[in-house]
Amino acid sequence: MYRTHNCGELRISNVGQSVTLSGWVQRLRRMGGMTFVDLRDRYGITQLVFNEEMNAELCNQANKIGREFVIQATGNVSERYSKNDKIPTGDIEIIVETLNILNPSDVPPFTIEDNTDGGDDLRMKYRYLDLRRNNVRANIELRHKFCLAVRRYLDSLDFLEIETPVLVGSTPEGARDFIVPSRMNPGRFYALPQSPQTLKQLLMVAGMDRYFQIVKCFRDEDLRADRQPEFTQIDCEMSYVEQDDIINTFEGLTKYLFKEVRNHDLGDAPFLRLSWHEAMRRFGSDKPDMRFGMEFVELMETLKGTGDFTVFNDAVYIGGICAEGCAEYTRKQIDELTNFVKSQQVGAKGLVYARVQEDGSVKSSVDKFYSPEVLNRLKETMGAKKGDLILILSGDDANKTRRQLCELRLLMGDRLGLRDKNKFALLWVVDFPMFEYSEEENRFMAMHHPFTSPKPSDIEKLETSPAEVLADAYDMVCNGVEVGGGSIRIHDAELQAKIFKVLGFTPEKAQEQFGFLMNAFKYGAPPHGGLAYGLDRFVSLFAGLDSIRDCIAFPKNNSGRDVMLDAPSFVDQKQLDELHLNLLPIEQK
Amino acid sequence: MYRTHNCGELRISNVGQSVTLSGWVQRLRRMGGMTFVDLRDRYGITQLVFNEEMNAELCNQANKIGREFVIQATGNVSERYSKNDKIPTGDIEIIVETLNILNPSDVPPFTIEDNTDGGDDLRMKYRYLDLRRNNVRANIELRHKFCLAVRRYLDSLDFLEIETPVLVGSTPEGARDFIVPSRMNPGRFYALPQSPQTLKQLLMVAGMDRYFQIVKCFRDEDLRADRQPEFTQIDCEMSYVEQDDIINTFEGLTKYLFKEVRNHDLGDAPFLRLSWHEAMRRFGSDKPDMRFGMEFVELMETLKGTGDFTVFNDAVYIGGICAEGCAEYTRKQIDELTNFVKSQQVGAKGLVYARVQEDGSVKSSVDKFYSPEVLNRLKETMGAKKGDLILILSGDDANKTRRQLCELRLLMGDRLGLRDKNKFALLWVVDFPMFEYSEEENRFMAMHHPFTSPKPSDIEKLETSPAEVLADAYDMVCNGVEVGGGSIRIHDAELQAKIFKVLGFTPEKAQEQFGFLMNAFKYGAPPHGGLAYGLDRFVSLFAGLDSIRDCIAFPKNNSGRDVMLDAPSFVDQKQLDELHLNLLPIEQK
Repeated sequence: MYRTHNCGELRISNVGQSVTLSGWVQRLRRMGGMTFVDLRDRYGITQLVFNEEMNAELCNQANKIGREFVIQATGNVSERYSKNDKIPTGDIEIIVETLNILNPSDVPPFTIEDNTDGGDDLRMKYRYLDLRRNNVRANIELRHKFCLAVRRYLDSLDFLEIETPVLVGSTPEGARDFIVPSRMNPGRFYALPQSPQTLKQLLMVAGMDRYFQIVKCFRDEDLRADRQPEFTQIDCEMSYVEQDDIINTFEGLTKYLFKEVRNHDLGDAPFLRLSWHEAMRRFGSDKPDMRFGMEFVELMETLKGTGDFTVFNDAVYIGGICAEGCAEYTRKQIDELTNFVKSQQVGAKGLVYARVQEDGSVKSSVDKFYSPEVLNRLKETMGAKKGDLILILSGDDANKTRRQLCELRLLMGDRLGLRDKNKFALLWVVDFPMFEYSEEENRFMAMHHPFTSPKPSDIEKLETSPAEVLADAYDMVCNGVEVGGGSIRIHDAELQAKIFKVLGFTPEKAQEQFGFLMNAFKYGAPPHGGLAYGLDRFVSLFAGLDSIRDCIAFPKNNSGRDVMLDAPSFVDQKQLDELHLNLLPIEQK
Repeated sequence: MYRTHNCGELRISNVGQSVTLSGWVQRLRRMGGMTFVDLRDRYGITQLVFNEEMNAELCNQANKIGREFVIQATGNVSERYSKNDKIPTGDIEIIVETLNILNPSDVPPFTIEDNTDGGDDLRMKYRYLDLRRNNVRANIELRHKFCLAVRRYLDSLDFLEIETPVLVGSTPEGARDFIVPSRMNPGRFYALPQSPQTLKQLLMVAGMDRYFQIVKCFRDEDLRADRQPEFTQIDCEMSYVEQDDIINTFEGLTKYLFKEVRNHDLGDAPFLRLSWHEAMRRFGSDKPDMRFGMEFVELMETLKGTGDFTVFNDAVYIGGICAEGCAEYTRKQIDELTNFVKSQQVGAKGLVYARVQEDGSVKSSVDKFYSPEVLNRLKETMGAKKGDLILILSGDDANKTRRQLCELRLLMGDRLGLRDKNKFALLWVVDFPMFEYSEEENRFMAMHHPFTSPKPSDIEKLETSPAEVLADAYDMVCNGVEVGGGSIRIHDAELQAKIFKVLGFTPEKAQEQFGFLMNAFKYGAPPHGGLAYGLDRFVSLFAGLDSIRDCIAFPKNNSGRDVMLDAPSFVDQKQLDELHLNLLPIEQK
């Protein structure tokens, strides 16, 4: 037996017991004739003591141990002379009698401490050492607890967790699929699912009534900062439901998770609901961060045509936010904001500001174009007080400009410390437009996905004015992050065919790609709808992480590589031959 | 709101309530002026009643409904005149007041009944209809309960469920990998994991201590009768353990699952343990079905050189089983057995039998070669009684012959009704050989996998006589099915290198393929070991299924095809171009 206890469980009540512990050497200190070893495992740290006077040979052996050695020690639990109240085992120590080195360790390439000296690349290459750090391990433990709580709650509501296949067919609508050549079916390919969307709908047709699955999904996209080629969804679907049924069910789940896993009470009130249009108008985002105000104020009436500033006079949209107490911003600080909004990431043409001075007067970067009366009206429209800074963007595309102003609002929220990671603001964004027009593809694209139901009252507009059609779609947003999203689905084969037509599919193409679903709808498909949470993001939010990577045991980097495993890698020609594949010459970039 | 109750919950206590139900039409019967509809959902069946006298129009509407239509009905719960005690809702019926057809249905291609008229191919093509059948749905529900119970139990023992990546690197040792071309890393391929073996070992190096995962695994093998290209494992690993720790832990889990999910008490006694050699000697299998005896009796002393039968005189192994009460088998029945053992599937050269007759004398197919004394000694050695049939195989390879005799034993077990699906016989097979010699590859292969630890006492034999080395490996067997298997792993880089050498890897090749693991072992790898259950098989066993397919929502057929989704399928050349791949001409078979 390697151990009688783990390194986190011994207390003062165990004093006098003979115990055996195994673990990693966190730290070794020599003081006088004593050697102290902090022995670590997943559960905690226990201090081992070696006394040169009592057993010189053993102490000598201990002094040769290095950091991260795996050792086994047997000895007596003893009360400490100087207690450590920072750790639960701090009242006791083990007076070691026998020591066994189970495995030595090379010096690790970075320190195994909360604040490590290891850079991101090194940590990822030696992820198995990185995971030994308390804070990284805590994220993995949190993820485990989170998933278990999800399953417990949904099971209590009669949801069945049902596994859907990973080797499916390719569906060109949406992002790019990863494809998998089939040796048994030469020339044919499986695809890895971007989500089990159509499969969960088939489960509803199958009468499963309430389905969920915590499931890996795959997208072969160019990876932006915080995306992974494989990610995990909490995928859910219900039959015989309307939008409110789904919203109520998953508000319940979310409140439960916050309470059980994060020990945070979201209260009894239902979450706020904002329509997509209102969210865009007030916050310039379909996932507004509601931890703070700083709402947009539209300034068309105030600033368009009321002075000689042609930029505003030509604008389709002018909007401002009021940054409380920032009137004292220096020239340099304002320049930083201007550079931020003009950066490629945001893309605005420029920034107009106005300071509300101590005497109540307004001093602005466009003073020369506007009368003091107009500037005073600006102050009043904005609801700005003495000491506030008004920041204004304009443009010829209202929603594009709003999105730019949103970026500025979030930046100011950060600067003013309004985005506290321990505060959680949840809401539903509802009434999404059904379609958005893609200039690139020269056609309408589904804003959620092609199986989303239009609002029944808008069905008649499908052929005449698709841009105006709203969908029974909803996103759950927390702190500016879309944690979940879903919709009521179409359960009628004819309506589904109409939608495919708006999306530019010929009936043949629709049949080829989604025939299996449309055919299924002919055999008694129930009304249904659902939702999927992004697990990685949701857990990151609970853990207060900036990146989803640290709640994933073995994440990939921005090139989709696992640098620890060195994957993807080259394969033998023999393997390709069996698949009837040939690799074409690749241009060196 | 689509429903106030589901179709399985109304009882006599609900009489008088106004309710709304939604579901599928299972059956419609007209009797006199009444129309009865059995409305079905996942939870049960409730009878709806339409009365022509009370509401002719409504009744007329009901009469137009077909099987599998999706309808919504509102009405009053009423006590039935003639109750149906076969269903929990059989005391009541709904006197319908309003009826709403939510979705019509074409006539389904097979009946949605426990005993359907649909053949296997049709059921798979319309799997979403097949899943509506009670018995198929029950398997999916059982699987859900099973997984939840696994998670609950392992969580209570401090196991963490940790997701490992699906896109990993290719490891040529073992079965064939599915590979996935990477667009972002042209010319390189991910592989889908055959199991998370190396990753879970890295999690142990990472100090996670106790890991599990219910996880999809992938093997691109030619599919035998009951294999799937993607299958699910309950994958587990523990640190600081010896074989007994693992066996005790998972015996606990298994007993819990049988009790909680199958309502079957396996008792307090530990499972039987057989060494691999003993299992082979007594049952000719490393997964013996212990629901019945019929153990092998070795007959070398009795029959080799004691008569003129050259087949036996040349044999390396002669063994027999005793089929109780089968002495009366007809010539035709014996011929069937002979054909069975001579079939390609079994591969024996022939079958010798001996009947123990009513007078105690023995009548055998080799009478002319042996004296009555020898035949009498055969009877005694076999422990055969009057009326028993002795069946004997021989061959020049002991274990090969034993495997053939095992097939015969299982067949006789079936014929004698000794393989009751409601009886469960569990055991551990332990002390597996470390290696088996592959004539095909002309080298030793790992019997479990190359990370399995040899028994410490056998390490010295690694270089001199690898065939004799036993492993710290164990399989859990139930009713002749291997439900789980695992081993203590090597945690020492040097020992791991030695094993790779026996397996014929050059140090360079070992480093190339498993360098990430051997390097990890240099940084304090703890002693560890684990086990993986085959979820599909385990659930099938609980459900009493002959095939694992029916506990999988969307299984693939023997060619690895999903006939419902029509996957795998052809992809656009554009997709291949992006991956720098070319498809070679494929010979038509």
